[in-house]
Amino acid sequence: MLSDTRTNAGVDNIARYRKMFTWETTGERVICLMCSGNLSITQGVITRIDRDLKKAAKGESVETILNVDSLFRVAQIIGDHMRDMQDLHRETLQAQGEAADATIILTGQRAGGMQRLFLIYSAGNFIEATEDTPYFQIGEHKYGKPILDRVITPATPMSEALNAVLVSMDSTIRSNLSVGMPLDLSIIRTDTYTFAVNRRIETDDETYAELSRQWSDAVRNAFHALPPAPYLEM
Amino acid sequence: MLSDTRTNAGVDNIARYRKMFTWETTGERVICLMCSGNLSITQGVITRIDRDLKKAAKGESVETILNVDSLFRVAQIIGDHMRDMQDLHRETLQAQGEAADATIILTGQRAGGMQRLFLIYSAGNFIEATEDTPYFQIGEHKYGKPILDRVITPATPMSEALNAVLVSMDSTIRSNLSVGMPLDLSIIRTDTYTFAVNRRIETDDETYAELSRQWSDAVRNAFHALPPAPYLEM
Repeated sequence: MLSDTRTNAGVDNIARYRKMFTWETTGERVICLMCSGNLSITQGVITRIDRDLKKAAKGESVETILNVDSLFRVAQIIGDHMRDMQDLHRETLQAQGEAADATIILTGQRAGGMQRLFLIYSAGNFIEATEDTPYFQIGEHKYGKPILDRVITPATPMSEALNAVLVSMDSTIRSNLSVGMPLDLSIIRTDTYTFAVNRRIETDDETYAELSRQWSDAVRNAFHALPPAPYLEM
Repeated sequence: MLSDTRTNAGVDNIARYRKMFTWETTGERVICLMCSGNLSITQGVITRIDRDLKKAAKGESVETILNVDSLFRVAQIIGDHMRDMQDLHRETLQAQGEAADATIILTGQRAGGMQRLFLIYSAGNFIEATEDTPYFQIGEHKYGKPILDRVITPATPMSEALNAVLVSMDSTIRSNLSVGMPLDLSIIRTDTYTFAVNRRIETDDETYAELSRQWSDAVRNAFHALPPAPYLEM
C-alpha cells in the first residue's frame, strides 16, 4: 500500500493529510486502509472506526475492525461507516456544489484467514481483488496506471511490486500537482500478522530520490534506444 | 498531431469517428484540427467551417480559415463557431444531464506567418503553446502524459517527437477502453505549407504493432533492470 499525503480544495488551498491508516494486534491481525475523495467523509469514517475501538477497549460490547471474525466483516463495517457519513453530508455538500465521493482501499489479514484486498465505494458497497484484477488504485490514478498494467500480475514478487508502485507514484507526482510527497508505505507479508514495512517516505528521502532518478534515466534511455520513428519516410 | 477515433456514449455504445480534420492550400496554407468532448458540438464546429468554405468557393464574401490573414484569426473563427454551438445546445444538454464541453487543438501555418499551435476551449477562448508548454493534449490525456513530460522539449527533433506521441497513445490505449485504434497522424514541417504525413494508422498496422512491442519490451526491460526495491530491509 502506497499513498501520497496531498489534499487540496483548489490549487491555492493545498494541505498535507495522512491518507493511510494502520491497526495491528501483533500475531493476530493487521489492517491497513488508504482513503481518497472528500476528506471530511473519510476522516469521519476513520473517527468512527477509532471511536468503536475505544468503546471496546473500555469493555463495551461493540463490533470493531479488530474483533470481528473476518476481513469481509471489516469491509462491511467500514462500508457502514461510509454510508453513515454519506447520509449525514452528501445532500448538503451537493447543494453547495461539492462532491461527497470517497473511496477506500482495505487490506489485512487475521490469524486463520486469508490476506484480502477490498475496494470500498461511496455507497458503502465493495469489491475484492482477484487473479484477474490483482491491484487497486484510488484517487488520481491514471498517470501511474500504464506502468502497473505493464508489470503487475498476481505472481509479481514483492521487490518488483514495490518498485512498480514507487515508480508509478513518481510518474503521477511529476505530472500532477495534486499529488505530492511525503508518501506513506505499508507492506504486509502473508501469514505474518504484522507490518514488514510501515513508514513515511519524506520529501528529502535520498533513497526515493535515487530510485526516481534511476527510473527517469531508464525510461529516457529506453525511449532514446527506440529505432527512428516510422511513417516519416512516406 | 495524433488522434484516436473512438467515441463513446457509455461502454455499450462505442463508435468510430474521425477526430482529426485537415485543410490545405498547397504552398500557401495548411491547417489541422483535433477535437475532443461532445461529438455533436465538435461536428457542428467542423460543419460550420466547411459551410463557410463552400460559401467562399461560390464567390460569397465570407471569412474562412483558408482566406483570413493569420492563424490567430483562424483560432478566433473556430472559437466563434464553438461559442455558437455552445449557445445552441449547452442548456438543453445540461438539462438532460449531458456535458456540452468540447476542446479543439489547432495548428497550421500560412505563407508569411509562423507555425502556431492553439488550444480552443468550450467557451471559444484559446491559448497558444509556448517554450514553457510546447505541447497540448485533449481528451483522455492523463495515461499518456508522463512519457511526454519526460521527453518533450521545444528542441525535441521530429523523429523523437513522433515516437513520443505514438508510445504515449499506446500507453493510453492499453489502459483505457475509451481510446482505441485506428489512429490519425498528421505532420506539418515548418515553412512547407503542406503535410509531410497525413494518414490513418489502421488497427492491423504492422509498423505500429512493432513499435508498440518494442516500447513494451523496452519499458519492461528498463523496469526489471532497476536495483532491488528499497525499504524492504528495514
